[in-house]
Amino acid sequence: MAEFDLIQAIRTRAGDGAGVVLGIGDDAAVLQPPPGQQLVVTADTLNAGVHFPAGARAADIGWKALAVNLSDLASMGARPAWCTLSLSLPQADPAWLEGFLDGFLELARDHGIALVGGDTTRGPLSIAVTAMGLVQAGTALRRDAARVGDEVWVSGSLGDAAAALVLGGHVPAPGGVVPVATPADRAALEARLHRPTPRVAAGHVLRSLAHACVDVSDGLLADLGHVCARSGVGAELELARLPASPALARVFGEDATALQASGGDDYELCFTAAPEAAAAIVQALDALGVAATRIGRIVAGAGVRALDAQRRPWQPARAGYVHFD
Amino acid sequence: MAEFDLIQAIRTRAGDGAGVVLGIGDDAAVLQPPPGQQLVVTADTLNAGVHFPAGARAADIGWKALAVNLSDLASMGARPAWCTLSLSLPQADPAWLEGFLDGFLELARDHGIALVGGDTTRGPLSIAVTAMGLVQAGTALRRDAARVGDEVWVSGSLGDAAAALVLGGHVPAPGGVVPVATPADRAALEARLHRPTPRVAAGHVLRSLAHACVDVSDGLLADLGHVCARSGVGAELELARLPASPALARVFGEDATALQASGGDDYELCFTAAPEAAAAIVQALDALGVAATRIGRIVAGAGVRALDAQRRPWQPARAGYVHFD
Repeated sequence: MAEFDLIQAIRTRAGDGAGVVLGIGDDAAVLQPPPGQQLVVTADTLNAGVHFPAGARAADIGWKALAVNLSDLASMGARPAWCTLSLSLPQADPAWLEGFLDGFLELARDHGIALVGGDTTRGPLSIAVTAMGLVQAGTALRRDAARVGDEVWVSGSLGDAAAALVLGGHVPAPGGVVPVATPADRAALEARLHRPTPRVAAGHVLRSLAHACVDVSDGLLADLGHVCARSGVGAELELARLPASPALARVFGEDATALQASGGDDYELCFTAAPEAAAAIVQALDALGVAATRIGRIVAGAGVRALDAQRRPWQPARAGYVHFD
Repeated sequence: MAEFDLIQAIRTRAGDGAGVVLGIGDDAAVLQPPPGQQLVVTADTLNAGVHFPAGARAADIGWKALAVNLSDLASMGARPAWCTLSLSLPQADPAWLEGFLDGFLELARDHGIALVGGDTTRGPLSIAVTAMGLVQAGTALRRDAARVGDEVWVSGSLGDAAAALVLGGHVPAPGGVVPVATPADRAALEARLHRPTPRVAAGHVLRSLAHACVDVSDGLLADLGHVCARSGVGAELELARLPASPALARVFGEDATALQASGGDDYELCFTAAPEAAAAIVQALDALGVAATRIGRIVAGAGVRALDAQRRPWQPARAGYVHFD
């Protein structure tokens, strides 16, 4: 199976999209940005054995490769528009490619993002995606816009993806012993790891409500730390307020806190907003079926202070996922 | 060395660029496309051991990773604007990264393209670049615009990159025996392989002169074949007219033809144009210091007929570089 057959298989399934003047099949795609819009661009790669285990399902890999990029667009408040896919495969495997495209294109359809180009090469399994979104000029959410006095919020719930990694034996258990989970709880936690939901609609409505925004990919403490560093502020985080899913609370009990605070791969949005915006935020995200929880505040200074229920300093065992460590 | 240090090293050196509202350092870049322009997007990956030998110089890898993408923008007539870089590295190696960025950013500066995002991950050495260019709406060159009666042209000269692969023992010699080359000739041929010159300015001026255009990356016969397939036409190619560099002619003599016709990696432009445009094409490309040579014509039918000096059919030993073969 030659490169051209793989590209043909992708092209046949990729379909068209809004603003696509010329899609897959030429040297490059030609795209029409609407007037008054800015382009929001992000690139994230998944490598076998690093970002997913060797035995992961092809459809889950396809879903996640796009999801992590859509999450970056979400954190900027951008609407997904177009993407490219650079796929390195050890050998041509039509069944694997079909499964991969099932997952990738299912999520792409959900968000109206068109696959417009890319390439297939021979090499160790690696998926590099570049996603392009659109946002009305000047309205993109940024990491550097947090202000002293802002409240800190998070969407959805935290810690499920890290919990699935613990249950799978991929990272150490925060309590030292891997807890027992029912099959249903385990499945719920694994779904969050393998099929994360990028908060695209939430990010879009937050453009007029939030100040700073980041997606929780490295871990809440690490990602909120990025916001503080870029904004020149500090943050106080009340760990007792961190939202947990029912499955996480049941399986991990008090040990859930470490996973919620430091575990990566949740792809929720962490954002800051003026206290006056609180009611509007809850209403806007509730209309989308997304929970919104206040978890702390922005203060003068630098860095993130994590406080337990008694407002005592909390020390994380692990400060977020870091490559090359 | 953590991911953030690598990104910081890249960010420090990437600099700013036109239309970059927000560059490296947030979840995504924010870019301002100028009014009336369309976005031209391409993605090409280089993998160690497939697209370059394991011992290749870091600066050459950086140059080539961007050059192959700029060549795709050139073939569309687009002006380079922004790019993302997804870099997988087996281990953090600051000296290698510095060398890589030397080559990548040298070419980026030459063409005014800004590095606006990407990521660094742990994995086998792989470089995935997505390049974005701009073109006045409706003026992009395409593969599907060749017309019967057009003349077929090529920029520069062909076969040097394939010649360097032969001399290096990476592909079989067309005459069966690897010829002897002087150090100067060998260096000239290797420079074409390791540091290809994307024909960006030539592609831009050809927008108003040429009909169809493609870059010669897979090999002239294969790439002109793509133009014919997309345009619904055939082509006659006069192999005796194919331009050769002095080094190629000296080292390979009559065996050069196979390298010129089938060797990939030249990154010249092959384009078609009405016969009336011939004088203007020569003048426009000459002003840029780029040779332009007529090598055939577009005919009714399908496929590429390669003819020797006596207009007899010529049979290539190898129909262009194909992945997974």
